Amino acid sequence: MKTIHIGILGFGVVGTGVARLLTRKKHLLESRTGAHLHLKTIADIDIKTDRGIDLGSTDLVDDAAAVLTDPDIDIVVELIGGETVAKDFIFQALENKKHVITANKALLAGYGNELVKTARKNQVDLAFEASCGGCMPIIKTLRESLVANDIHSMSAILNGTCNYILTRISQEGCSFAEALKKAQELGFAEAEPSLDIDGHDTAHKLAILNALAHGMEINLKEIHVEGIRHITPMDIAFAGSFGYTIKLLAIGKIHGDHVEARVHPTMIDNANPLSHVDHSMNAIAIDADATGKTMLYGHGAGMMPTASAVLSDIADIARNIISGTKRRVPILGYPEDNIRPMPILSMKELMTRYYLRFEAQDHPGVLSRISGILGENQISIKSVHQKGRKTNGKVPVVMITHTAREEWVQTALSQISATDCVVGNPMVIRIEEEAV
Amino acid sequence: MKTIHIGILGFGVVGTGVARLLTRKKHLLESRTGAHLHLKTIADIDIKTDRGIDLGSTDLVDDAAAVLTDPDIDIVVELIGGETVAKDFIFQALENKKHVITANKALLAGYGNELVKTARKNQVDLAFEASCGGCMPIIKTLRESLVANDIHSMSAILNGTCNYILTRISQEGCSFAEALKKAQELGFAEAEPSLDIDGHDTAHKLAILNALAHGMEINLKEIHVEGIRHITPMDIAFAGSFGYTIKLLAIGKIHGDHVEARVHPTMIDNANPLSHVDHSMNAIAIDADATGKTMLYGHGAGMMPTASAVLSDIADIARNIISGTKRRVPILGYPEDNIRPMPILSMKELMTRYYLRFEAQDHPGVLSRISGILGENQISIKSVHQKGRKTNGKVPVVMITHTAREEWVQTALSQISATDCVVGNPMVIRIEEEAV
Repeated sequence: MKTIHIGILGFGVVGTGVARLLTRKKHLLESRTGAHLHLKTIADIDIKTDRGIDLGSTDLVDDAAAVLTDPDIDIVVELIGGETVAKDFIFQALENKKHVITANKALLAGYGNELVKTARKNQVDLAFEASCGGCMPIIKTLRESLVANDIHSMSAILNGTCNYILTRISQEGCSFAEALKKAQELGFAEAEPSLDIDGHDTAHKLAILNALAHGMEINLKEIHVEGIRHITPMDIAFAGSFGYTIKLLAIGKIHGDHVEARVHPTMIDNANPLSHVDHSMNAIAIDADATGKTMLYGHGAGMMPTASAVLSDIADIARNIISGTKRRVPILGYPEDNIRPMPILSMKELMTRYYLRFEAQDHPGVLSRISGILGENQISIKSVHQKGRKTNGKVPVVMITHTAREEWVQTALSQISATDCVVGNPMVIRIEEEAV
Repeated sequence: MKTIHIGILGFGVVGTGVARLLTRKKHLLESRTGAHLHLKTIADIDIKTDRGIDLGSTDLVDDAAAVLTDPDIDIVVELIGGETVAKDFIFQALENKKHVITANKALLAGYGNELVKTARKNQVDLAFEASCGGCMPIIKTLRESLVANDIHSMSAILNGTCNYILTRISQEGCSFAEALKKAQELGFAEAEPSLDIDGHDTAHKLAILNALAHGMEINLKEIHVEGIRHITPMDIAFAGSFGYTIKLLAIGKIHGDHVEARVHPTMIDNANPLSHVDHSMNAIAIDADATGKTMLYGHGAGMMPTASAVLSDIADIARNIISGTKRRVPILGYPEDNIRPMPILSMKELMTRYYLRFEAQDHPGVLSRISGILGENQISIKSVHQKGRKTNGKVPVVMITHTAREEWVQTALSQISATDCVVGNPMVIRIEEEAV
């Protein structure tokens, strides 16, 4: 039986999960792949903490070079995360002709195009199933299963922290701060949560998925990103009264030679299956021309779900090695020569529907003034609700618009804010109509 | 650019879909695979009907031998269906060293083990993503993505005809016969619908999925199969009043060295995402040890979704050919030497919960007699409902049991039927508690 030697960089939560699967599932993995997947070396700056795994013949070292330069090691699994040392290590591993597996979405989103070029130059594989959607096989589905499809749109819940917080606000009516605190206590949010709650983690994943879906270069910087800090229980309650749920969605759509790519809190109809994806679960809905609407659902994070995705990459590369091949499926789903840069639609040009909530002065004529300004900006109102009690002479006025252009909406909102009809900035939440 | 020659057997609905994708998506497929996928020949007994496709350089012939014996053809796609000529053709294609792709679940369920052996002897691939769940990538997920997982259980809606009929009864309160008629009018059911509505099609798929999940030989004949003909609007309404939905489920669970494999109408809690899978949609929920609970959702049938799955197999084999390899992933997910026969749990030994509905005489003591017999057979009742109006002196009595052994339940029901308390056979619907 052929032995394939694996080195892991980073013995944190996911690294421990991968080591656990490689040791405890040795028999299953041999039985399925026909190869012995040998975890030769783990490198981490902390070599003292007991991770509860009998490492057997595996070396635990504090020097990444022991993995990166070991001629025996076929596959380097980078599970350090972030864009500092992890970046250097991955480039070194590729230059040393190692196949690389990573779960590092920030690095892929920021430097993925360079990484793909480096992997090509060195004729090795770069795999990252664990980078998006945890154990959901979304990378494989886009690269292999949907190969004959033009992918019209993707809508996805890709951050368990945000989904947990929004679910909790929704179910308990608590504030964002209270829900975040609870999420941190339960381990669903980091002590420094901004990467998650401000939407950046979701944007990293969307950049990767858009590239795979459309044969485009990874394009992170043009993605519009908003987080969930400003979402209030009042907006979630209003959403519910219209039959909507608020989720932090990654939305990717193709429009001819450019794509729409945005991450923000979004109201979706309760008939949309994504609205039922609660707590820390993730899901991605894909609308493609041959398949029609499909959805994947599963744990988007956590030690073992993420490790399961890493193992699917290890098995893929192992099966390549056993079959005497490599780079069998292009890293981004298209051979590098067929990947093109593709611009992202400016948010100004977005056409969608809007939920608008104003803190309006309780004076005669205010509603007429607000709706007048919207009308002057070609924004047509589908419904208006003035509910709830007055607070300090203000009442919440909620409007749902028909499809309008984002630029018009922003102009109208500036004009409304400049009047004496409202206080503070209006709340704007975009509405997605499409259900799976 | 390398050309890969493809022959299709069967120019029906799915064959037309595959031909359409190979011709209309030529550019996309070349751009993704780096190969020219050339549809060289289509064989069908009907070479006259216009399928609305410009076949260009493709030959349309009425003799399968033109595909099976053509030395140019690398991949034979069998889309005839059934177990007669399709079976002979697939075996011939394999013996002629062609890679074979099929959507034929009946054939795979009945002769899959032989087909796997023949493919091995001839060192060719046999692929069947389109056989289960239409465009959902369930075969690839089981063979490749979940490679490090022990799969505890699968619960799946795999037949769009049944799901459409059950949804319709549920939403409209119509009878099974009315719902079937409507399904036939709309093309969701065949004129001869028994393969679907009696559960056999679902059982074929479960036999395939169980093999892939557990490294076992395909075992169809021991699967317990019940269809949906006997489901009434009354039972669906009762189910609703308990917070349940009735779905035709394929259920596969592992128990040490044997598996549980059954197809029958099943009550599931409305919190279970499968309960929201309506109309002709399919879904499969998988509970595995590393991933936890996951779900795939999509169109389980239809021209283009099924053709999309066939194309993913074509691309896989094309990528193998370009990479100079074949048989890279074992046909059933495990190398043939590691596949073992595995017995299916006898239904007598099943432990589950039950919904029981009796047409009881409206006499004093009847409820006591029924519950007494259940108690004597160690069946504990969770709730009893006697609702609805009396018809000809009978009232429906509905009971939900705690977990009980199927053998006890059948014994108790025979004893109850032998009394003068009830008329006709009681309705028995098993309840699955597990939600994804």
